[in-house]
Amino acid sequence: MRSPRTIYGPEHEQFRAAFRSFLQREALPHRERWLADGIIDRDFWKKAAADGFVAFTAPERFGGLGIDDFRFNAVIDEEVAYLGAATDAFQLTNDIVGPYFWDLASPEQQERWLPGIVDGSTVPAIAMTEPGTGSDLRGIRSTATRTDGGWLVNGSKTFITSGIQADLIIVAAKVVDPEINGIGLFVVDATTPGFRRGRKLDKVGRQAQDTAELFFDDVLVPDADVLGEAGRGLPLLMGNLAQERLAMAVSAIADAEQALQDTLEYVSTRTAFGAPVGTFQANRFSMADMVTEVRIGRVYVDDCIERQSRKALPDAEAAGAKYWATELQWRVLDRCLQLHGGYGYMNEYDIARRWRDARVQRIYGGTSEIMQEIVGRSIGL
Amino acid sequence: MRSPRTIYGPEHEQFRAAFRSFLQREALPHRERWLADGIIDRDFWKKAAADGFVAFTAPERFGGLGIDDFRFNAVIDEEVAYLGAATDAFQLTNDIVGPYFWDLASPEQQERWLPGIVDGSTVPAIAMTEPGTGSDLRGIRSTATRTDGGWLVNGSKTFITSGIQADLIIVAAKVVDPEINGIGLFVVDATTPGFRRGRKLDKVGRQAQDTAELFFDDVLVPDADVLGEAGRGLPLLMGNLAQERLAMAVSAIADAEQALQDTLEYVSTRTAFGAPVGTFQANRFSMADMVTEVRIGRVYVDDCIERQSRKALPDAEAAGAKYWATELQWRVLDRCLQLHGGYGYMNEYDIARRWRDARVQRIYGGTSEIMQEIVGRSIGL
Amino acid sequence: MRSPRTIYGPEHEQFRAAFRSFLQREALPHRERWLADGIIDRDFWKKAAADGFVAFTAPERFGGLGIDDFRFNAVIDEEVAYLGAATDAFQLTNDIVGPYFWDLASPEQQERWLPGIVDGSTVPAIAMTEPGTGSDLRGIRSTATRTDGGWLVNGSKTFITSGIQADLIIVAAKVVDPEINGIGLFVVDATTPGFRRGRKLDKVGRQAQDTAELFFDDVLVPDADVLGEAGRGLPLLMGNLAQERLAMAVSAIADAEQALQDTLEYVSTRTAFGAPVGTFQANRFSMADMVTEVRIGRVYVDDCIERQSRKALPDAEAAGAKYWATELQWRVLDRCLQLHGGYGYMNEYDIARRWRDARVQRIYGGTSEIMQEIVGRSIGL
Amino acid sequence: MRSPRTIYGPEHEQFRAAFRSFLQREALPHRERWLADGIIDRDFWKKAAADGFVAFTAPERFGGLGIDDFRFNAVIDEEVAYLGAATDAFQLTNDIVGPYFWDLASPEQQERWLPGIVDGSTVPAIAMTEPGTGSDLRGIRSTATRTDGGWLVNGSKTFITSGIQADLIIVAAKVVDPEINGIGLFVVDATTPGFRRGRKLDKVGRQAQDTAELFFDDVLVPDADVLGEAGRGLPLLMGNLAQERLAMAVSAIADAEQALQDTLEYVSTRTAFGAPVGTFQANRFSMADMVTEVRIGRVYVDDCIERQSRKALPDAEAAGAKYWATELQWRVLDRCLQLHGGYGYMNEYDIARRWRDARVQRIYGGTSEIMQEIVGRSIGL
Repeated sequence: MRSPRTIYGPEHEQFRAAFRSFLQREALPHRERWLADGIIDRDFWKKAAADGFVAFTAPERFGGLGIDDFRFNAVIDEEVAYLGAATDAFQLTNDIVGPYFWDLASPEQQERWLPGIVDGSTVPAIAMTEPGTGSDLRGIRSTATRTDGGWLVNGSKTFITSGIQADLIIVAAKVVDPEINGIGLFVVDATTPGFRRGRKLDKVGRQAQDTAELFFDDVLVPDADVLGEAGRGLPLLMGNLAQERLAMAVSAIADAEQALQDTLEYVSTRTAFGAPVGTFQANRFSMADMVTEVRIGRVYVDDCIERQSRKALPDAEAAGAKYWATELQWRVLDRCLQLHGGYGYMNEYDIARRWRDARVQRIYGGTSEIMQEIVGRSIGL
Repeated sequence: MRSPRTIYGPEHEQFRAAFRSFLQREALPHRERWLADGIIDRDFWKKAAADGFVAFTAPERFGGLGIDDFRFNAVIDEEVAYLGAATDAFQLTNDIVGPYFWDLASPEQQERWLPGIVDGSTVPAIAMTEPGTGSDLRGIRSTATRTDGGWLVNGSKTFITSGIQADLIIVAAKVVDPEINGIGLFVVDATTPGFRRGRKLDKVGRQAQDTAELFFDDVLVPDADVLGEAGRGLPLLMGNLAQERLAMAVSAIADAEQALQDTLEYVSTRTAFGAPVGTFQANRFSMADMVTEVRIGRVYVDDCIERQSRKALPDAEAAGAKYWATELQWRVLDRCLQLHGGYGYMNEYDIARRWRDARVQRIYGGTSEIMQEIVGRSIGL
Repeated sequence: MRSPRTIYGPEHEQFRAAFRSFLQREALPHRERWLADGIIDRDFWKKAAADGFVAFTAPERFGGLGIDDFRFNAVIDEEVAYLGAATDAFQLTNDIVGPYFWDLASPEQQERWLPGIVDGSTVPAIAMTEPGTGSDLRGIRSTATRTDGGWLVNGSKTFITSGIQADLIIVAAKVVDPEINGIGLFVVDATTPGFRRGRKLDKVGRQAQDTAELFFDDVLVPDADVLGEAGRGLPLLMGNLAQERLAMAVSAIADAEQALQDTLEYVSTRTAFGAPVGTFQANRFSMADMVTEVRIGRVYVDDCIERQSRKALPDAEAAGAKYWATELQWRVLDRCLQLHGGYGYMNEYDIARRWRDARVQRIYGGTSEIMQEIVGRSIGL
Repeated sequence: MRSPRTIYGPEHEQFRAAFRSFLQREALPHRERWLADGIIDRDFWKKAAADGFVAFTAPERFGGLGIDDFRFNAVIDEEVAYLGAATDAFQLTNDIVGPYFWDLASPEQQERWLPGIVDGSTVPAIAMTEPGTGSDLRGIRSTATRTDGGWLVNGSKTFITSGIQADLIIVAAKVVDPEINGIGLFVVDATTPGFRRGRKLDKVGRQAQDTAELFFDDVLVPDADVLGEAGRGLPLLMGNLAQERLAMAVSAIADAEQALQDTLEYVSTRTAFGAPVGTFQANRFSMADMVTEVRIGRVYVDDCIERQSRKALPDAEAAGAKYWATELQWRVLDRCLQLHGGYGYMNEYDIARRWRDARVQRIYGGTSEIMQEIVGRSIGL
């Protein structure tokens, strides 16, 4: 049922095949354990890095492949979703956190940080959200206070993806300085005194991905570890938005495609009242609606991927793609679960896991409501 | 707010400009009168034909332009919708009825019929629906009974677009013959004895387009006026479905784009409680949703147009495009009307007319439910 | 399919039977003409008044019945909707405008105005909305300027129900006076110099009800014709909100009940593919959803009617009832139209008329969005 | 925000207070442990029984209270939902399984079985669903084959609520007998040889409630342990449907009320961009919609409770109430989760638990689709 694709060349498809086979070999056999443990093996991450699936956009001189073509990112996001590999950190590293390092870090910083990220020995994270602040970056209360040769970071962050494993954390904090007014991006090494991890959070889904609260108590960040200019963090945080948001839309459509494919199989074979349940008209219509909408979503998101691979996707359109695709994903997943009847409510069924995992897509990376706000403003309202 | 298009070449855009200017000059000044009269001038039709906007797909030797590229059809459908020209017959002739003549008529028949259609002196129509039958072609009760050298057609048809003006009507009738079992397509000249037009139907919208009941009482159709093989009408009727359905989707998206554009203007200027009404968050979100969905619909329908221009659009996908696009059109139109407040309920406002016109799109050419059925079956359910 | 009712006593059911028979005798035979003319006969109105169906809440000494029990009002609203009588003015007079006269008019004013309203010789109206103002009463630009012994009213109003027939119009205008800041309610006799009616507006539906623009050019309103205290109009306008809004909800549910009943008959008898169209599962589910929701709406609105008959319905809850019931009405009407296929789009079919009539319910008397705002504020948000 | 109730008398409210205090004392302190263990303490169940909250409908001579008034059942369902007590077995025992024992069991059977059920020492269950059969009872494949003095039951069942703790299980099986054609209800003592429990199923929610697969391998059920007449099971299974379904609707509305109340508190105190998040218009409207719909649901379900307490609620209407209320519950829960932002996705937040618990309501006890089917048939479609 997956539509044939037109945006990819043979190089992307080769990459896809290699990554798919890697996941089948190195991720799927361990998935249940990761889900139970609430964390994936660091070892897996190093293998993925060794095979070139982590931070490949980084310049070659730092070990990367220097591939600046979002279609490769999309291939990874899609395969993770198709296989249900439970390896969210690819998206975090390649699509979301990575760009801060290759776009904003100075050559000297890159030299220090990128090799570890590229070889998988350094797990990066970004810490924006705070217990009292969701999508409102201006409301950040963590502070960075001027001190000799650097800054003292104080505050707490929550919902930090890879918070338990992270070695290097970009922390958004309000600069406390008579001359600077604004947010700064402070890179905190996890071994620095004063840094402390909180509990691993127990989430509704995405349980193989560790998520945590982080605490900062007079954590010293030397000047050399500030990303860009302190106080100019807000615009910097906005520089990568189209890619972040589109990445989530990419995962959303692929997940919906797979769930729909699996559900088609289910409703075609499961019988009741003497016929496959999918052939009851109301279910047939339900499936038809999903097939139609997912197909439309596929064409649209492919168009966005292609534009983003040319850096031509406007931020506000990416916001629209993010919320529309994740809302579609949700409608599809919820309907597919329903079509599975009681089995849909059993965690052992793939559809139940996908459904629990999908729910957060409408929330993280900016809620659907924040995305609507952004689109609305982009048309002058 | 309309997205830039990538599927059209300069030849299409030139055609668009010419057609747009033609409509502005020849249609818009007369529109209110046509709406009041319930019919457009035949004269208008001849002018449109003279300028090459009617039946241009017909072979050059019969006066057509031999243009077999659906993108030109789409340009016409779009401009009619953008301008609100109330000239539905372009779609009927070019996208829906025309193909029967160029695909199914024999060379001899083409020689007799096409010149008139191409120069606008012959208005064609197709009569399938009956008072007791909607989308169920197998339920047709009109009959064609063998007689000397031809067939006697009996029965009645309803909801026939251009039924009042039509000169040449393709009538679907059940063949009554010991050896033939099936439907036939019988071309009835409107001057034939026994043919009678009923009332011009009073519709909720699309009031410049005449729609009528037609009655057939022993109407003689000579063998030479049968399209294709009598009894094989059902597959013939299915040959052009992708184009018919896509044409409606094309109109749907263009209409939604225009309504949204007009509404954006309205909500940006109309104020209440001291601010433009579009800036109230609920309205802003409403506009953002529409902008996002219409943009997605545009990308998708353009992809379909491009495929159809290569005859590569599957019937079932066109069915999906038809119902999804017209349902989207409806959601958009209804929301836009609401955003106009009381003015939306006044017929003099463009939005009220578009809204009334739009409602039938979910019904004619196969209801949304029939389309869902088709998509459902295409995935084996 | 209509649920049995528990809120009415024999006195209400007797009143219902009398009114129903009155409408069948005096309204239905003339309905098509009224729709074509865009206005109902004044004569009809006088007969209705003579039979006690107009302004019956007015005190007996002014000719009314002194019946202050909203259940009688509801009976009238329901029967008008059930029969599709196209006599909107009952609701306007009894539920909306009337209360201004019996609740706010002084005994002296009542003595002058009520007898005419009660005997049907005076058609009352209320003029709040202005071309540039919808639901925002604070934005009213019409003015009432102090003059000797009264006020000079200037401005224009639009969407005024019964604007063409009205003899006595309550006009909301901003008081221009150094000592008074606020809105006043000025009762304008239609024969006063400076008062002028604009066009009869051409609406999408409700075509037997005249709706108009009104113009006021130095219209003198003597002090004796001000309702309540000039400047205190806003709270006065709010005093009757629960009843106004509930009345619209009452009409909404009754209309939905009737449309559903009619549609059930249609889908039970109309066949396609060899079976009644209502027995196709998707249609059956659609009908089941409507039956369920309308039943729920009925129980809820009855509960509201009962409370309003004891003046115990909170304004904000009436706002919720208004928008929920009219949105439900719309979903039902639109779905019922769809179930009628092509016939639903023909004005001669009752369902098309009901559908066109229903659309304004989400707009007038405060749009659904304004109602949501009110409910939201009532819970402290 | 909870509406005042009119259907309860002082005796019900006293019962409510007692039960509420019981849950606060005996359930809430243990809830987290029960959730972690996937089962509640049997000891709790005995205490509940001792206090008269279990099987109180049973005749007094068997230890019950002989209370045949559904309002008491509803009080229990509501308080469990309001407090989030995670004690689903009350509904199972009192509303669903219990009636089989008091309505269908013979006096001799009652004498044997009821005392244990009433004092909480016997946990009852009902086993209908099979791995290959959902809502289609006619598709049951478990068999009961005639043997000397009884029946040999074979087959497997799944999704059986209380399957792990159950002592006495009503098993629906197809009777294999030359003279009997139909389903029978066979009561299996869990100590009977051949009976085996499968895994405790890992569900998306409702984790304190054990749910299991059950296996029957030549399990002997003596004639004395057949409920009603073997072969007449289908009508017997249908006898209690209105109560079963309404019970779920009762839980649904109470759960929605509580979630909404909690969310109102959350959005009134949580701030972003300098204001409580609930005051952003889109959120305010969202809250307003929920308040309105839940209020309507409350009035409607109360009406149903009152009718059911008089055994006057038609089965098909209960089916409508079940699916409408649980679909409403779901819309509310999902929206409330969204309004909690990231916190909504954390299992430690009450809203996340309620959301996971709520999802199965649209599935068990007959899916929403089965309910639509039932309502549809009840109107002749």
